[in-house]
Amino acid sequence: MHITTLNNMTIEELQSVLSAAKKFAEGKQWELEQQMFIANLFYENSTRTKLSFEVAEQKLGFKILNVDVHTSSVQKGESLYDTVKTLEAIGVDAVVIRHPEENYFKTLIENINIPIINGGDGCGNHPTQSLLDLYTIFEHFNRFTNLNVVICGDLRHSRVARSNAEVLTRLGATVSYSGPEKWFDHTLPKGEFLTMDEAVKHADVLMLLRIQEERHQQANNEKDTSYLEQYGLTVERERKMKQNSIIMHPAPVNRGFEIADELVECHRSKIFRQMSNGVFVRMAVLKFALQNGKV
Amino acid sequence: MHITTLNNMTIEELQSVLSAAKKFAEGKQWELEQQMFIANLFYENSTRTKLSFEVAEQKLGFKILNVDVHTSSVQKGESLYDTVKTLEAIGVDAVVIRHPEENYFKTLIENINIPIINGGDGCGNHPTQSLLDLYTIFEHFNRFTNLNVVICGDLRHSRVARSNAEVLTRLGATVSYSGPEKWFDHTLPKGEFLTMDEAVKHADVLMLLRIQEERHQQANNEKDTSYLEQYGLTVERERKMKQNSIIMHPAPVNRGFEIADELVECHRSKIFRQMSNGVFVRMAVLKFALQNGKV
Amino acid sequence: MHITTLNNMTIEELQSVLSAAKKFAEGKQWELEQQMFIANLFYENSTRTKLSFEVAEQKLGFKILNVDVHTSSVQKGESLYDTVKTLEAIGVDAVVIRHPEENYFKTLIENINIPIINGGDGCGNHPTQSLLDLYTIFEHFNRFTNLNVVICGDLRHSRVARSNAEVLTRLGATVSYSGPEKWFDHTLPKGEFLTMDEAVKHADVLMLLRIQEERHQQANNEKDTSYLEQYGLTVERERKMKQNSIIMHPAPVNRGFEIADELVECHRSKIFRQMSNGVFVRMAVLKFALQNGKV
Repeated sequence: MHITTLNNMTIEELQSVLSAAKKFAEGKQWELEQQMFIANLFYENSTRTKLSFEVAEQKLGFKILNVDVHTSSVQKGESLYDTVKTLEAIGVDAVVIRHPEENYFKTLIENINIPIINGGDGCGNHPTQSLLDLYTIFEHFNRFTNLNVVICGDLRHSRVARSNAEVLTRLGATVSYSGPEKWFDHTLPKGEFLTMDEAVKHADVLMLLRIQEERHQQANNEKDTSYLEQYGLTVERERKMKQNSIIMHPAPVNRGFEIADELVECHRSKIFRQMSNGVFVRMAVLKFALQNGKV
Repeated sequence: MHITTLNNMTIEELQSVLSAAKKFAEGKQWELEQQMFIANLFYENSTRTKLSFEVAEQKLGFKILNVDVHTSSVQKGESLYDTVKTLEAIGVDAVVIRHPEENYFKTLIENINIPIINGGDGCGNHPTQSLLDLYTIFEHFNRFTNLNVVICGDLRHSRVARSNAEVLTRLGATVSYSGPEKWFDHTLPKGEFLTMDEAVKHADVLMLLRIQEERHQQANNEKDTSYLEQYGLTVERERKMKQNSIIMHPAPVNRGFEIADELVECHRSKIFRQMSNGVFVRMAVLKFALQNGKV
Repeated sequence: MHITTLNNMTIEELQSVLSAAKKFAEGKQWELEQQMFIANLFYENSTRTKLSFEVAEQKLGFKILNVDVHTSSVQKGESLYDTVKTLEAIGVDAVVIRHPEENYFKTLIENINIPIINGGDGCGNHPTQSLLDLYTIFEHFNRFTNLNVVICGDLRHSRVARSNAEVLTRLGATVSYSGPEKWFDHTLPKGEFLTMDEAVKHADVLMLLRIQEERHQQANNEKDTSYLEQYGLTVERERKMKQNSIIMHPAPVNRGFEIADELVECHRSKIFRQMSNGVFVRMAVLKFALQNGKV
């Protein structure tokens, strides 16, 4: 079963993945009945997602093929479809793909017979990141209902903003937005638009987004302290946050830009905790995909 | 025992490798008596060959070292010989090498004491590709004798044309050629030269070659539909093929160039089957090399 | 426990690592009580060190994460600290780092809670190389005391010269130097400065250094036979070496430059032996680091 977006997963399915992730975090094993191969096919730079998948795959006991697109036949002009079909032919059981093109998987899902797990498609989806965000929120609050989640920053180019807003709303949270108006995206799920000063007082979950410089050139001109002062989380703003509230960020963090350097590892920050949780969430997603929706 | 070319392998040796490959395809295991390390040293881009070797090596239980020549001391000017000698020194048991230089292994075979498995040398040899071609033919026809094999396309720059022609002739098949005359190579084993229209009616095995753009610049000018019309396998030509005949291609395929896009996965095409078979053939070759000719 | 330099290791600690390496060379196993992950994070090109660590890690049964800095978030400007903190967060138990910046680890050692093993820092330290040099010397002579060690060549830019001179002196050897005067470094531990003709007659251990072209541009102008004639080990000079003396070099060797081509694998050369020993030394260092100084 392909995992390309959370939009077509039911609440029950989402909850079963989160619950399986929790069991993996508690040390549960999944005994493979036979040797299985997973290929990691990353057409974009990544540290966290790729390595997190690798750790998850190794913990599950999979054999791993890391496809280096810089030295593969991709350089001879081979299409994504033919590359994935090749992986299927040589015996790969599932493939994790990150690709700069939004909805790259549309050309694959019908004719590829092994699960595709989307590791990020352009400005589109990033389902395992969204799931680890959900996991981290639930781990802290033990609920989604009646939580104020404010998503802040580059809403237009982020592949988690839309996906998280949609799924958090479905799960009962109240989603609002903050950030530079030019990056606000009117196609996002409904939600209030707040200044950053309002956001910090309102939020149970302050979800900062990375300024995706690699996705738009204009950002470079903004990269001075004026962004942090106007739209980022400063030390002063953090002091006004609610007592039990948390800070999240998908990383890599631009320290001193979206968030003050000294806050990245503060008691309220879940940034590195998100990474730790990501491993267990990816274990659950792989199991879910390979067992066709059962975990 | 080094595996650098099929030319110096006897028919008995070839058959024993094919037969071992069949057993691996049927699920047979080879129990290693001790931990063994294989290094993959690829100086040229590759998806299929490299990943296929990796799957084969993992299935055999080897520990794998993937040498990234782009970040290795090769960048400091280290010679191939010193790199391979280093691998031997750190405990590697066999090394798979792809290198752009024809007969690169001549500088290695005398002083390197671990098996070298040739994963392709320039326009020279590609023994495991040839063996998987043989395997795929035998799997379909259960014989080599009295088969008409037509090798089509860029005969001059292919590293499988010569090797396949030689070994198929030895095994009793009748080899002919087709393709642009300027790429015909008069040093190839004896065989008729056919137009593509003649070839499709004559062939039991239509073996298409990749236009090796990376090996000669002129090809670029040819890359329009006129190549397909004159020398490639069009839908119309495929209809004239014999009932039980098959289409082969070492891949990556230039779709719409050597072969019409819609034929790549047609019932007659063995293109992805060749890849699946490649894993088992490489398992057999590794065992053969490491057991000094016994499988 | 971090292993960043040998300077802060006691003689007892050095000896316990060498002794553990010897046991690994003799086939001893270290049974891990649980699955452990090691990340290899190389910001500079390397064959020997990286592959040697990989073999060592596989022999110890670790799960390995090879971080490709060319396709990681390092390309998005992520700092070394954040990259290593990420590795810690996703469950890595120790990290091997090579980095072009001297003392890169100073920013890490306080806030990173997993062992850092230094695989080379700029012109600074290379503790596992020094340890394998020590191992190779002790393996041949069974002592360090009363040995004349002459370190020859590019003393200024080498990361093993200083480290080896310091530790060999502490262990009772007499260290001298040879090479172009412009590369002599007056901050090195005390030692005589010899011509190469004097060096070959004096040395029990002739420790040649690589001309680190990648570290200084001037070297290129020197790269003709005049370097070998004046400062290198020629066939004529080798004949004047003491009967039981040995030749060492950290490799990759510039054949015909620091040493005559035909001497690289002569009976007196320990160059490839050093590489073989490196695997066992690195096994010992990993165990030492992960067991907090106990092996």
